[in-house]
Amino acid sequence: MSFTFKDALSLSIFGSSHGSYIGFTLSGIPAGVKINSDEINLWMSRRAPGQSILTTQRKEADEVEIISGVNDGFSDGGAITGIIKNMDVISKTYSELRDRPRPGHGDISLYYKYGRFRNFQGGGFLSGRMTACLVGAGAIILSALKMRGINILSYIDTMGDISIESEKKITENDIYSHETRMPDLDANNRASSLIMDLIKNGDSTGASIKTIIKNCPPGLGEPFFDSFESVISHLMFSIPGLKGIEFGSGFGFTKLKGTDSRDEFYMEEGKIRTRENHNGGILGGITNGMPIEFRVAMKPTSSIRESQNTVNLETMENEQITVKGRHDPCIAIRAVPVITCVSALAVYDLILRSGINRS
Amino acid sequence: MSFTFKDALSLSIFGSSHGSYIGFTLSGIPAGVKINSDEINLWMSRRAPGQSILTTQRKEADEVEIISGVNDGFSDGGAITGIIKNMDVISKTYSELRDRPRPGHGDISLYYKYGRFRNFQGGGFLSGRMTACLVGAGAIILSALKMRGINILSYIDTMGDISIESEKKITENDIYSHETRMPDLDANNRASSLIMDLIKNGDSTGASIKTIIKNCPPGLGEPFFDSFESVISHLMFSIPGLKGIEFGSGFGFTKLKGTDSRDEFYMEEGKIRTRENHNGGILGGITNGMPIEFRVAMKPTSSIRESQNTVNLETMENEQITVKGRHDPCIAIRAVPVITCVSALAVYDLILRSGINRS
Amino acid sequence: MSFTFKDALSLSIFGSSHGSYIGFTLSGIPAGVKINSDEINLWMSRRAPGQSILTTQRKEADEVEIISGVNDGFSDGGAITGIIKNMDVISKTYSELRDRPRPGHGDISLYYKYGRFRNFQGGGFLSGRMTACLVGAGAIILSALKMRGINILSYIDTMGDISIESEKKITENDIYSHETRMPDLDANNRASSLIMDLIKNGDSTGASIKTIIKNCPPGLGEPFFDSFESVISHLMFSIPGLKGIEFGSGFGFTKLKGTDSRDEFYMEEGKIRTRENHNGGILGGITNGMPIEFRVAMKPTSSIRESQNTVNLETMENEQITVKGRHDPCIAIRAVPVITCVSALAVYDLILRSGINRS
Amino acid sequence: MSFTFKDALSLSIFGSSHGSYIGFTLSGIPAGVKINSDEINLWMSRRAPGQSILTTQRKEADEVEIISGVNDGFSDGGAITGIIKNMDVISKTYSELRDRPRPGHGDISLYYKYGRFRNFQGGGFLSGRMTACLVGAGAIILSALKMRGINILSYIDTMGDISIESEKKITENDIYSHETRMPDLDANNRASSLIMDLIKNGDSTGASIKTIIKNCPPGLGEPFFDSFESVISHLMFSIPGLKGIEFGSGFGFTKLKGTDSRDEFYMEEGKIRTRENHNGGILGGITNGMPIEFRVAMKPTSSIRESQNTVNLETMENEQITVKGRHDPCIAIRAVPVITCVSALAVYDLILRSGINRS
Repeated sequence: MSFTFKDALSLSIFGSSHGSYIGFTLSGIPAGVKINSDEINLWMSRRAPGQSILTTQRKEADEVEIISGVNDGFSDGGAITGIIKNMDVISKTYSELRDRPRPGHGDISLYYKYGRFRNFQGGGFLSGRMTACLVGAGAIILSALKMRGINILSYIDTMGDISIESEKKITENDIYSHETRMPDLDANNRASSLIMDLIKNGDSTGASIKTIIKNCPPGLGEPFFDSFESVISHLMFSIPGLKGIEFGSGFGFTKLKGTDSRDEFYMEEGKIRTRENHNGGILGGITNGMPIEFRVAMKPTSSIRESQNTVNLETMENEQITVKGRHDPCIAIRAVPVITCVSALAVYDLILRSGINRS
Repeated sequence: MSFTFKDALSLSIFGSSHGSYIGFTLSGIPAGVKINSDEINLWMSRRAPGQSILTTQRKEADEVEIISGVNDGFSDGGAITGIIKNMDVISKTYSELRDRPRPGHGDISLYYKYGRFRNFQGGGFLSGRMTACLVGAGAIILSALKMRGINILSYIDTMGDISIESEKKITENDIYSHETRMPDLDANNRASSLIMDLIKNGDSTGASIKTIIKNCPPGLGEPFFDSFESVISHLMFSIPGLKGIEFGSGFGFTKLKGTDSRDEFYMEEGKIRTRENHNGGILGGITNGMPIEFRVAMKPTSSIRESQNTVNLETMENEQITVKGRHDPCIAIRAVPVITCVSALAVYDLILRSGINRS
Repeated sequence: MSFTFKDALSLSIFGSSHGSYIGFTLSGIPAGVKINSDEINLWMSRRAPGQSILTTQRKEADEVEIISGVNDGFSDGGAITGIIKNMDVISKTYSELRDRPRPGHGDISLYYKYGRFRNFQGGGFLSGRMTACLVGAGAIILSALKMRGINILSYIDTMGDISIESEKKITENDIYSHETRMPDLDANNRASSLIMDLIKNGDSTGASIKTIIKNCPPGLGEPFFDSFESVISHLMFSIPGLKGIEFGSGFGFTKLKGTDSRDEFYMEEGKIRTRENHNGGILGGITNGMPIEFRVAMKPTSSIRESQNTVNLETMENEQITVKGRHDPCIAIRAVPVITCVSALAVYDLILRSGINRS
Repeated sequence: MSFTFKDALSLSIFGSSHGSYIGFTLSGIPAGVKINSDEINLWMSRRAPGQSILTTQRKEADEVEIISGVNDGFSDGGAITGIIKNMDVISKTYSELRDRPRPGHGDISLYYKYGRFRNFQGGGFLSGRMTACLVGAGAIILSALKMRGINILSYIDTMGDISIESEKKITENDIYSHETRMPDLDANNRASSLIMDLIKNGDSTGASIKTIIKNCPPGLGEPFFDSFESVISHLMFSIPGLKGIEFGSGFGFTKLKGTDSRDEFYMEEGKIRTRENHNGGILGGITNGMPIEFRVAMKPTSSIRESQNTVNLETMENEQITVKGRHDPCIAIRAVPVITCVSALAVYDLILRSGINRS
């Protein structure tokens, strides 16, 4: 039933792909945080479908209506609820899919877990559409983090065989001025071509997203079961289509020696720093003051145009299925702001909890 | 303060690298599970130091004394507490490290989070030694899973440039009869040579560990925030030195197209199966009845023989440090049974929770 | 931040006394529970203000609009969100109270906890109005309990010096056909007169509410920290104005001897029963199959017509305050359905959890 | 499985009445709290059996051995585990009770919940003996609270028909120098006589315990579901034999009018105070700076000498039972320090959480 994450922050999400509304209830935000609708809707638009020729053509305004917890533009310490109306609901497309689960989707999981009362339309509440709720809540938290000088950047660093050249000095503008969310101009151009080809062929591609969190205070993360990596990864794996996460050198570590991957300490301007940052800003599960760095793997959208093999859940016989609908050739593109917002949730939760350790 | 994981199961661990005892309290195990001391101690010995020339020479018997929750060899529904005496404690080795954090270790994190009262000896409660507690508790859960026919195998699949050849028909014996925990004979031999070289040079290596869970029932994992991947990864990242996790094709997905990575369904002996298993047995965050497959990345042991740069936390000046102690050239080797045991914890927790969804 | 209760069920509530909406998000309800709007709104009307001359004249339709989690009249296993529009909002009445906390209310608590950004109008999110959210969610759960044959009755058993005569055979109709919620006709008449007098004098009265839960299965309640009494009382004390709870003989036990209060066992129709039920159906924190019985104490509404002493939070000087608004002479009357609904939440949560103990 | 309470603090308890050990694991205590063994053992002795002629003659030293989390007399931020050896275990007394549940005890509950693998000896893990674990952990927390100037006093205020005269200026010495824990000399003498009579007759009595918490900061308690009363009552009802709790005027409120029970505000030495304290220091579920006051009801020990009716769980036939064992004529006496220690747990948890609300 875990539509609720509860810790120092509590976030409940609700709704489904083709219901009347989706939304969120976020509590634990202290009174006095400035809540800016334009800022929330900017983030919503970065995730919203139909924004570019490179993403799904489902049309959703995705404006968040805040119905509680905010007075005169400031949080009041109460639960903040935002609702988002589902506009472009085409149930008919899905009704024929009821008994034929789409390969690679959670349809079969809904069948196993909820049986005949399952919400099957468009993946129901397992749909990627639910990430709009994460962005609505996350945008509020990003404002709270900005007040503390903490900044989070996410962008696509690889897509198929395309990689960005260099990661120096990436800005939010570099990312969001490019439809592919690859901050590097050349990579963006190549990725755009790739996606146009995929659209033509009804195919899709995976990609990886890198995130950098700057000015995160040291000492965040709880010992053992709630390490910084534990809390972030727990939340990240709630994002549909995300299948891997690595911190710092991550899987690269498996090919390295200790002598090649040491993060030696030195003093710089009164602060303890490390020469390199193989550990991605986290040692022993706790932040060490260096930038947090991690990457996630997004799988290719499972909805492809080609006919696929499936089974009929009524007759239990093999069948074919053709997924029509309107789908993203690279779901990672729209996942970029989601990753940023979910990171914000994890970081802010751990900031609130960190006060608990001070005597 | 998260020495406690609490969900359908509750697991608290306690102790530190050089304290008198370490141990665990596990509750949520139903009454009537057979608890076999030999089985627990078999798993403990697989993780214990000093078992082979390839691992640290710290000597610990690591026998678990169960002091509650078991009557006449069966769980009674109460909290099961096991304690493990720390035998080979050499505090002197560490006392000189008090103010000079070892690069790559959590020493600096303890300083930031706990200040002058921190438990600094050997990494205190952030030490890899704490994973003995996870194995003690996990071995009990493995017994409960075996009663349900669920089987978990973990082994090293890559170490440096060495990979195993084929993953067909790996047995527990293939893994634990090889000191490197690489089930493939040739890989084991090459890895043994690599490690002997590392020992000679006072160096270390990273490695990756693959886990396969067979006969896991479909429908495990809670929608959204407690997806199967979320719960497993949360627990995995509590293991010191673990820096990445990927399910199924994981990061490989980022280079694949949708047409190359589809898991099409078909019927086999009355069961819905998929031709391939790119998704590692998990769709929409919920198990689909196929084997669960995931890989984790373990970093090289940070303790290397060479002198390294650090800072003095008292004087805040740059210094050098040489880490003596007794350390593992490849910590992943002893992490193998830990990964199995932590997987057991995640799976059993989700099994217990899955009953909640039935009306 | 605990606007969220999270256990096997999760319930988040949101909104405030004079905001635009209040509402709830309830998850953990299995797929396939019949959700009946009429039933929900019947319970809402039993709590709603303005229903009788004996309660506050604030007018609220208090109809719940379900915006997620229900398809074709059945729960789909997703989060169920209901929103309720606040209609009769008169902020002006409260704006003059901003800096002068009403004695006996949570106004001062909001000041201490949230400072200048507090939501002060009508008690903000600490208002008794928030109990409408509990009733909306609870009514859904009552339907789920009815499917299992579990029945919950709450009624006022004492108000000031008035007590009901006998507790035999009380029905829901006996309770809700009486405006005072005292099921006994004579007591109802006397209580009506008392309340008319209180209205005339601008005064209020406390009362106690008794609850009986029938057909509750034995074995509910978790050992030690989540005893049946713990879970019920935790939720009950979230209800504004509730200041005491006792199970079975409760405080009466303090005057009894062991020989006068034993619940001896005997067999009846193949079931183990007790002759008396001093323990209110709960032994060792776990249900024993006898009816659950408990009583709660509700304080008199703090808003009385007379002028009262308070302090000005800006000037920190003593002042007088006259609370105008529209208030209940006996808040316990409208609390009766709230107690029933909150009981339902506790019982159903423990039913879901009880499955976890079976091996 | 709730042997674990987890919030800002986490407390797991383990063991059973007649197992080898009982104990606790407490985490969330910040590094740097002075841990004094003498102080812990003082509290343990106040609860220990066999301390006076008025309590059970079971002999237990009840010394806590701290095996983790403390270095050089200070907490190190890690989990603090204490173990207590069960010395005076006489299993034979209980083995004949296996299938004949003692009236008023949790024996029947263990049968319903755990079936044939239940731990039945002396109430197993539902035994009052488990409160020793609460005292061990609570004594540590009391030290942390004393550093903040917070003081908690609990004492028996009524036993049968005996009440204390006046509650002015009660000290810890007034309480613990009296074997009955009634701070008033006359009441103590009368209660001693009552208990001697009860012992002679093999009978027992209930009693009520009052608790006063001084210098508790205002603003503690979370809105709605985790009100101060909710958190305290949740923990209190984990204590075996406790059947009621009331805050401030509690059930007295049900007989009062609003005009008789108002807590008007006034300024005194720069602080906001109330003339009376009907609300027991808590308004809207949150502390208001006045002393916290609450009372709990303890039932008479169910173990009485007289033969009682029970059923045989094997044959399902009516039988008689005579409970031999060694029991307390008034369990409330030994519950007094337990109530203090559990109060400490609740208060400190809410103090740690309160930091979360500050932006």
